[in-house]
Amino acid sequence: MSTDQLIIADRSFTSRLLMGTGKFANNQLMAEAIRASETEVVTVALRRVDLDAPQDDMLAAIDTERILLLPNTAGARDAEEAVRLARYARMAGCPSWVKLEVTPDPRYLLPDPLETYKAAQILIKEGFTVLPYINADPVLCKHLEEIGCATVMPLGSPIGSNKGIKTRENLRIIIEQSHVPVVVDAGLGAPSHAAEAMEMGADAVLVNTAIAIASDPAAMARAFAKAVQAGREGYLAGLGPQSSLASASSPLKGLMWE
Amino acid sequence: MSTDQLIIADRSFTSRLLMGTGKFANNQLMAEAIRASETEVVTVALRRVDLDAPQDDMLAAIDTERILLLPNTAGARDAEEAVRLARYARMAGCPSWVKLEVTPDPRYLLPDPLETYKAAQILIKEGFTVLPYINADPVLCKHLEEIGCATVMPLGSPIGSNKGIKTRENLRIIIEQSHVPVVVDAGLGAPSHAAEAMEMGADAVLVNTAIAIASDPAAMARAFAKAVQAGREGYLAGLGPQSSLASASSPLKGLMWE
Amino acid sequence: MSTDQLIIADRSFTSRLLMGTGKFANNQLMAEAIRASETEVVTVALRRVDLDAPQDDMLAAIDTERILLLPNTAGARDAEEAVRLARYARMAGCPSWVKLEVTPDPRYLLPDPLETYKAAQILIKEGFTVLPYINADPVLCKHLEEIGCATVMPLGSPIGSNKGIKTRENLRIIIEQSHVPVVVDAGLGAPSHAAEAMEMGADAVLVNTAIAIASDPAAMARAFAKAVQAGREGYLAGLGPQSSLASASSPLKGLMWE
Amino acid sequence: MSTDQLIIADRSFTSRLLMGTGKFANNQLMAEAIRASETEVVTVALRRVDLDAPQDDMLAAIDTERILLLPNTAGARDAEEAVRLARYARMAGCPSWVKLEVTPDPRYLLPDPLETYKAAQILIKEGFTVLPYINADPVLCKHLEEIGCATVMPLGSPIGSNKGIKTRENLRIIIEQSHVPVVVDAGLGAPSHAAEAMEMGADAVLVNTAIAIASDPAAMARAFAKAVQAGREGYLAGLGPQSSLASASSPLKGLMWE
Repeated sequence: MSTDQLIIADRSFTSRLLMGTGKFANNQLMAEAIRASETEVVTVALRRVDLDAPQDDMLAAIDTERILLLPNTAGARDAEEAVRLARYARMAGCPSWVKLEVTPDPRYLLPDPLETYKAAQILIKEGFTVLPYINADPVLCKHLEEIGCATVMPLGSPIGSNKGIKTRENLRIIIEQSHVPVVVDAGLGAPSHAAEAMEMGADAVLVNTAIAIASDPAAMARAFAKAVQAGREGYLAGLGPQSSLASASSPLKGLMWE
Repeated sequence: MSTDQLIIADRSFTSRLLMGTGKFANNQLMAEAIRASETEVVTVALRRVDLDAPQDDMLAAIDTERILLLPNTAGARDAEEAVRLARYARMAGCPSWVKLEVTPDPRYLLPDPLETYKAAQILIKEGFTVLPYINADPVLCKHLEEIGCATVMPLGSPIGSNKGIKTRENLRIIIEQSHVPVVVDAGLGAPSHAAEAMEMGADAVLVNTAIAIASDPAAMARAFAKAVQAGREGYLAGLGPQSSLASASSPLKGLMWE
Repeated sequence: MSTDQLIIADRSFTSRLLMGTGKFANNQLMAEAIRASETEVVTVALRRVDLDAPQDDMLAAIDTERILLLPNTAGARDAEEAVRLARYARMAGCPSWVKLEVTPDPRYLLPDPLETYKAAQILIKEGFTVLPYINADPVLCKHLEEIGCATVMPLGSPIGSNKGIKTRENLRIIIEQSHVPVVVDAGLGAPSHAAEAMEMGADAVLVNTAIAIASDPAAMARAFAKAVQAGREGYLAGLGPQSSLASASSPLKGLMWE
Repeated sequence: MSTDQLIIADRSFTSRLLMGTGKFANNQLMAEAIRASETEVVTVALRRVDLDAPQDDMLAAIDTERILLLPNTAGARDAEEAVRLARYARMAGCPSWVKLEVTPDPRYLLPDPLETYKAAQILIKEGFTVLPYINADPVLCKHLEEIGCATVMPLGSPIGSNKGIKTRENLRIIIEQSHVPVVVDAGLGAPSHAAEAMEMGADAVLVNTAIAIASDPAAMARAFAKAVQAGREGYLAGLGPQSSLASASSPLKGLMWE
């Protein structure tokens, strides 16, 4: 599998599991889970780190030689807030990549298609590499691709719901039509959900809650890592079609002594 | 994970992926897939091997030092035929383990609860270790457990259909109630299906068609092996509950500069 | 639709909605719901009525001129108990129809395939018209049909769960293969579930909990009656196939002024 | 149910089934289906009728005394085309209601959130009553409601796919949050799908393909009408919760003779 690389903008990655850093009980559990996941991209809410303090515990726990820190705009309620957060991060020395999240409603944290599009336009013009978190909306995905987003990140189900892929019909169309990597984000609550996304042909997945709230986060991170590989390898190995009739695994042409 | 063993009757296994041997294009592809799967139990249709010919290609391709050959009664249409096949295998030198399949209808190859129960009763009295293939019927599972079956092997969906787990409600109850290992058999068409079964708490899965008909069977076998591990490890690491509300991965208490 | 009759044994019915009588808050609510449902078959647990007391409130509430009272063996844990209940009912003057329920486990009330089959054999020999409640097991259905059961009554999901049709794969096969009426029993929790069963080609459905525990049982009974008709008429009117591509409802050959 | 009215803008309706007019084999079948459906709102693609020709067959087939003709902008690929179509219709004497459809991609005909929003803004300012067809996107729905749309019309699944409700998670949230009527549009392929939408609390549904391509369109229209009523009445009558445990319909406290 060494030649099967995920390429986003100008960087390539071996791991197809992106990881979020919210909700961990403490930084040590987080660091262990990141190591176990073998992830190469870790998202961090801008509001959670003090970017001026290089000794910040949380960042210290992440090996930034090997791992891309991807700031996200979690908490931004409209384009203006999101843009401001992204700019601030860059001023503070972050790379110019940003996971764009615009979520006006705190109850379900669903993304805003209009404000996300507007923020993406502005940030791309300013030279940012933009990875937008969005509903599984195929037409919106095409628009975001056209203005230069580096990926699309459609949700599987609402953030933190653990419900898995509830947007299968649209996701299938997005994957079929996209020319940028499709990263399934939000709602993946079990390793099988991540495997399923990869089997559909997604390029990567992002997982946070399911790992962070597991009884054993590092073990769960390892499980997700294997599931992502399993799904990817299953996809590449050529899954068979579903059938309504049975099809004997064993030949049935009469018993042995007949 | 080295201490997490699957114990069936008096044997213990490290791998929780059982593999069937039907439908492979040739014995070499089969042998490669078996190796890649790391399986320790391989089922063989009694009618497909010539048990009197030790040089038989197919068996030669399987490392029987490490792997348990599990004869199945595929093709048996009633208890009598199944019992006859099992006895014949033992006479020919097979171990006294048998995967019991009784499928009167060639169209869907669904198992017969009455004839399977009858055959299991006879074979257990004769000293066989019986692993019955059955519908996902919780009450039938209890009956089979009571008469001494070594496992229950409920189906996920019809053999060869690749549809995955379509019997989730009953499977959940079977897993909750069973005191013998539950091996989900038939219908698992993608690695994510196998992971899902393990996450539900199944003890093992059996896969054949999905691997045998893949474009690259060895790669698919490897993918299933990882998925089974991912699902098992996810189950042990403590999956979180599903929720209808969103739950922010990132803290949302006001933006950074507020 | 007047010629579209449901025929069970030697009787024909216009309504395809069978109704159970458990769980109603009182007999008046039950009677209103029965009327609103337009049902022609009502099941009654033998243990709930005092068959020697013709003035029994509950039976008095049912118009037995128009409606067939179908005693069921709810609570029977094995064949012997079920047979005893059925005989007792006949002695007390009930018709010789019986809905056969054998449920050894009080937690999920799932039917026992072995004991149900055994009881059906005995009761049919004694002249009963037997309607067995069973798991959605196609092979068991064929066996029950072969020994002379008047219907098969596979469950949609566990009794009282309101989960709808969770046995769709097997149910489809049962409907395809059966030569006696298929009555989907148990688990139908909403009118749409009943409509779905009918659209699949089921001959009838039996509903109890969903009506009895509704805020307004009579209104819910009316809703189920309409849903059963809707599903049946949809089935007869020829449902179209599902498609993965969109298919414009409106012609798209250029805008009006082009 | 006479007091249970659907109110859109300043009009009230008794029927909650809206019907499309595409794909019928001929105008007579269409007219019969409209009558059988008892619908009070019928959508017509602007490009399909010649609005200057009052004797147009198709419109002649619809009783516009009782039925609101709702022009749609099917075929519009962006906001500009949609606005132009709507204006043209009004100039030709149509009422100023418009079902707004903007679908840039002919393969799946999925709606464009950005262009739909833009067109809605313009048309509302010009005094139109706008009913937009959209993806099941809760945040977009709030935006459209805020600028004054008369309804939101989220899709169940792609137009003409007959797949039913594949957007259940988001639809649930839309229904919970909306202050304007929610009309589930597109993809409803069977009466049970329409009932399910109504049971979830949708205010109405729009159906076209499933009726138009049925073997017997008028019978299918009648089936959908009943299903919509069944679902609505079930919703109002108070559906019970789903449960994972069984719950006996019949009391189980010991057999009769015990």
